[in-house]
Amino acid sequence: MNTIPDEIFNCLCNNQRFLILLHQKPDGDAIGSAVALGKGLKQLNKTVDYYIDLPLEDKLGFFEEIQYFNQTLQDDYDVIIYLDCSSSSFAFSPAEMPTAKTRLVIDHHKSNAHYGDLNFVEITGATAEIVFRVLRGLNVVFDEEMADAIFTGITTDTGSFQFSNVTVDTHLIASELYAIKTNYAHLSKRLHTQKNINQMKMTGAAIHSLEILDGMPIALMILDHETIVKFGGTINITDDVANLGQNTIGVAITALLKEIDPGEYRVSLRAKYPYDIHEIALKYGGGGHERAAGFNFCGDVGELKQDLMEVYANQNGEA
Amino acid sequence: MNTIPDEIFNCLCNNQRFLILLHQKPDGDAIGSAVALGKGLKQLNKTVDYYIDLPLEDKLGFFEEIQYFNQTLQDDYDVIIYLDCSSSSFAFSPAEMPTAKTRLVIDHHKSNAHYGDLNFVEITGATAEIVFRVLRGLNVVFDEEMADAIFTGITTDTGSFQFSNVTVDTHLIASELYAIKTNYAHLSKRLHTQKNINQMKMTGAAIHSLEILDGMPIALMILDHETIVKFGGTINITDDVANLGQNTIGVAITALLKEIDPGEYRVSLRAKYPYDIHEIALKYGGGGHERAAGFNFCGDVGELKQDLMEVYANQNGEA
Repeated sequence: MNTIPDEIFNCLCNNQRFLILLHQKPDGDAIGSAVALGKGLKQLNKTVDYYIDLPLEDKLGFFEEIQYFNQTLQDDYDVIIYLDCSSSSFAFSPAEMPTAKTRLVIDHHKSNAHYGDLNFVEITGATAEIVFRVLRGLNVVFDEEMADAIFTGITTDTGSFQFSNVTVDTHLIASELYAIKTNYAHLSKRLHTQKNINQMKMTGAAIHSLEILDGMPIALMILDHETIVKFGGTINITDDVANLGQNTIGVAITALLKEIDPGEYRVSLRAKYPYDIHEIALKYGGGGHERAAGFNFCGDVGELKQDLMEVYANQNGEA
Repeated sequence: MNTIPDEIFNCLCNNQRFLILLHQKPDGDAIGSAVALGKGLKQLNKTVDYYIDLPLEDKLGFFEEIQYFNQTLQDDYDVIIYLDCSSSSFAFSPAEMPTAKTRLVIDHHKSNAHYGDLNFVEITGATAEIVFRVLRGLNVVFDEEMADAIFTGITTDTGSFQFSNVTVDTHLIASELYAIKTNYAHLSKRLHTQKNINQMKMTGAAIHSLEILDGMPIALMILDHETIVKFGGTINITDDVANLGQNTIGVAITALLKEIDPGEYRVSLRAKYPYDIHEIALKYGGGGHERAAGFNFCGDVGELKQDLMEVYANQNGEA
């Protein structure tokens, strides 16, 4: 496992009062990194404050350390630590920013602007990997919550060890976490696979509706109004439903139509390289990117299908 | 990483002609273990034959070594290796079984009957972990296909490093695999998220059938014969289907009933700690682990439901 630079070690050892900031809408890596680093510094008798964008997603709400988030801030700190933030403008910061001798950036984003006085930026699977190495370097003893926190950061940012950002170090750190606590199955489930029964049934209904358009690599799914109401409303349509079409072998473009009110659809589009579904979203007054876009729609679904097939046919000529 | 027993090392070193057998309907762990061990032994100038239940699931069909499966068998071998088979009756074996000096069992199932002359049985995340240690012990050099094979075994049998069977060793071995080949993202997608349209529809049908038994935390899913035929046969029932019930918040025990032939079911059981569904599988003549087991069934589904509810109720008293 790679070690940590002396200047980072010295900054954390030789200072006393720390403030931890994360990016807006903090994800598992941001929260996991904050919990582990905050608890680790406290173990070394440092004082640690957190200023964090709340509320968290339900699945991240289990850390006891969260009770110490967003207490009264001091006017001045020795070090403000920016965790998992690629730029300072992306950070969630207090309106009146406390002063500090040192701004320390700890992050794994390739796009990081190195905006700190000290920057510990490496392209790892997760910021939590760097935090783990920092705490090992400081000879901190990990408790189970800290192990859970590092695991949360790694597993969420690597898609459960599946993405191309996983390295030798990712698994070496995971193996050390299993030496601290022997079972992360419950946590993995919480973070990756659990759905309530309505979310599960909604997913099933979306798959049931999945239709391949006229032999083209286009998948269409419709959750009609009755189905959405039956399974507790749109809140139970999980993010991964729009990806179901794309996970089907041979599909390049997916449209998910959610009939929010009778005859009124919210349409989510997904495309694989090189297809661009942005233009069709713009045509219907929506927006997004080349590979993920959306719009509201209350016309004839048959016409929308024709549009999708035309977009595919036109671009397939160029592809 | 734990080492391998001398007697296993000697058996593989001191013999020349090997036959590899797997369990019926070989999964990712069985195939991955066979490919890695077979190629490793060949590298040591051994002769290796494979007798394997084909066809494989599409997602496992990418190993070049598969071309050597099911060639002409010899009448006699030095060693017949049973890989990932908890019992000899569960193994897929030739009608005329070749003779052999030694039957070597390499397996990770708790229920393993130690039916070999030599048995290397440890409760690891995957048989592929044991195979990795065996090959390291034999100083075999891993090529990328062998690394993919071990990775396939581990990632499929641990649910992408999420199940409670993951240990320190699982991640240590994974870290060594990343030192051999730096990216397993494409393979992970192939094994975990991509489905053909029939597999996707079968998944949807399983969710549609999902029923919670009488207010208990027990999920039952039935893929009836008509549905299985409609979506191309049991080959299109992906491993994750049995887990869908378990992924539903509040569910502790899941039974997936696959009606292979009219009135004849293959039952897959899953349980969460502390529930143990191994005993119910044994009662019906099947096998497996405490948390994942299976058996064949051609009785009344209503009675099976009663059995599941009793197992839950009895164990809930102890839990």
